[in-house]
Amino acid sequence: MEYSTFGRHVAVDTWGVAFDKLNNAEWLQSQLVEAAEASGACVLSVQSKQFEPQGATVLVLLSESPLSIHTYPEKGLPGFDCYTCGETVDPQVAIGYLVEGLQPEKAHAKKLIRGVGEITVAEAEMKTAALAAK
Amino acid sequence: MEYSTFGRHVAVDTWGVAFDKLNNAEWLQSQLVEAAEASGACVLSVQSKQFEPQGATVLVLLSESPLSIHTYPEKGLPGFDCYTCGETVDPQVAIGYLVEGLQPEKAHAKKLIRGVGEITVAEAEMKTAALAAK
Repeated sequence: MEYSTFGRHVAVDTWGVAFDKLNNAEWLQSQLVEAAEASGACVLSVQSKQFEPQGATVLVLLSESPLSIHTYPEKGLPGFDCYTCGETVDPQVAIGYLVEGLQPEKAHAKKLIRGVGEITVAEAEMKTAALAAK
Repeated sequence: MEYSTFGRHVAVDTWGVAFDKLNNAEWLQSQLVEAAEASGACVLSVQSKQFEPQGATVLVLLSESPLSIHTYPEKGLPGFDCYTCGETVDPQVAIGYLVEGLQPEKAHAKKLIRGVGEITVAEAEMKTAALAAK
């Protein structure tokens, strides 16, 4: 059986997120799992780490590829990535879900198109409802 | 305590890799752990999945951030990412280790500079010894 190798990888850094959200690996894990499910992706397993004195990393293994977050609570910064293979699952849906939950003041994103030769870079369409509401 | 938020994220798609390497989650896991250790990163945990009828995903949680691979054995394609925070661990060392083990015919890579405002894109310096030897 052959699958399409086309993939979309959205990389996001957001700023101005509350310390308590970014320093809670358990809450972040539930957000990532919900974000993956909202996008229609299939969650296979999860690993997470709460760092001391602060910070967290969560990696979600999807059947479509990985979803991850790494946080700097003291700077209000989480960096997150969603890379999904195929046309069915749009990583921007998962990203939009995370942005809504994190409520950042600023977001910077890039989208990489992968699996079809040269990796190309596009601006990501950020779901800005959460940002506009601030 | 505060840490530098500067991060380097290298995304790589390589082509022309042997089916048997890409369809062996156990071997890929050992390659990723060795690549992380070669770069001086600290491996905290690993999750991997062998897909049927073929394909594998391995996600390695580092204290410096994630290292991941997702493979399409039937197309000779693995896509892999190494995102490390701080100045100490260079993700291109881990990527170079993986390229040497995978022996691809072609490699496409982009490097994202993250954690310092807008995400910027640079060409990645690929370690091409493995490629040149083919």
